[in-house]
Amino acid sequence: LNVFGEFEPKIPAGWTSPEVLFCGNIHPTIQAAVLDSCSGAKFTALDSMNLWIMTEPTALSDVMRRVDMAILNDQEVRLIADDANLIRAAESIRSGDALVEPEGWGPADGHPGTGPDYLVVKKGENGVIAFTPQGMVALPAMPTSIVVDPTGCGDTFAGALLSLVAASGIVQPGIEEIREAIINAVVTASFTLGEFGTAGIMNLDRADYAARRDSYRRIAGV
Amino acid sequence: LNVFGEFEPKIPAGWTSPEVLFCGNIHPTIQAAVLDSCSGAKFTALDSMNLWIMTEPTALSDVMRRVDMAILNDQEVRLIADDANLIRAAESIRSGDALVEPEGWGPADGHPGTGPDYLVVKKGENGVIAFTPQGMVALPAMPTSIVVDPTGCGDTFAGALLSLVAASGIVQPGIEEIREAIINAVVTASFTLGEFGTAGIMNLDRADYAARRDSYRRIAGV
Repeated sequence: LNVFGEFEPKIPAGWTSPEVLFCGNIHPTIQAAVLDSCSGAKFTALDSMNLWIMTEPTALSDVMRRVDMAILNDQEVRLIADDANLIRAAESIRSGDALVEPEGWGPADGHPGTGPDYLVVKKGENGVIAFTPQGMVALPAMPTSIVVDPTGCGDTFAGALLSLVAASGIVQPGIEEIREAIINAVVTASFTLGEFGTAGIMNLDRADYAARRDSYRRIAGV
Repeated sequence: LNVFGEFEPKIPAGWTSPEVLFCGNIHPTIQAAVLDSCSGAKFTALDSMNLWIMTEPTALSDVMRRVDMAILNDQEVRLIADDANLIRAAESIRSGDALVEPEGWGPADGHPGTGPDYLVVKKGENGVIAFTPQGMVALPAMPTSIVVDPTGCGDTFAGALLSLVAASGIVQPGIEEIREAIINAVVTASFTLGEFGTAGIMNLDRADYAARRDSYRRIAGV
């Protein structure tokens, strides 16, 4: 937390209506403030972590209900829903059942109170499973024996995923848009994993990216 | 082990040249005896378990070198190779480096002494990764929240996989034959998982199978 403990983000006026808004992992009340400031965003997403899941379930539930997409890892999904079955856990987050019910605004008050429409679950070396309004998408990881440093993989994954959602210009991406976005995310994150820090993606050239994506497509059959 | 401790399988004369021979999980010397009796088999495969990996590494290595395909779970692959990285572990089994060197017959004696050409690694809810002479195939599991009884899933998986290898009539199946065989295996095993014992597949009808396979193809994009 350190310097972010008292952080109050100021969003420049020109940035309040982005195509895609991604709230990286930070205290959920800061994520909520950013969402408030960017009311013109067409598509919103967030990341979180076990700390907020355990210490700030109400504030996290509030932002989870407000965004279009949550990008979480499998342990976080199981922890939020308190359910070892990942498929059931994910569905109960999307339905809102696994989230804290907002005061005066929830299923008991006749409001659907649903969670994010899109839930992308990262499983590390075991791939990705995404839940969308049109159904599930499941993809394997990029197989690799070269694991140098996972730092930044989650942010690379989210950035690459959302860049393709933004490029598609679609506010309600379908299964095939989500699949292509995840393929981009899996392949791009594999470069981050293969070197220290950001070295793997800082100077990544298009040909190396394209070659690895082709290889991934052959392996996964997609 | 029980009744199989002293088991000496007698193969009927008419069964010694099958299209596909699968040696289910049992003491590797019994698997070796079956391989000896079925020298006319076109394609051979085996399963094993942690008990034989730990107590009979030499006998197991011997049969691993003799079959075309090993079908193992991820923990077994890591245990054989003593390597937490699954990709590296699998490659070292296929190359023979992770197997016990046969006496007077191994890399040191100028013999390649390789392991099985095909290694299919089952990862339970995390899907399957297969290593073939033509490259890797990776597929997700069939997502399910209905897990009743995993007993028999491994044998269902192997049977369904090899039935498609046999049907293809191909002695050196390529990546796409292996992919189709794994899809069949994943979908069929998901029926075993969903009910007790063999109830899920005993009366499985073609329409239910086809519907679930279609659903799997949409989810995995294959």
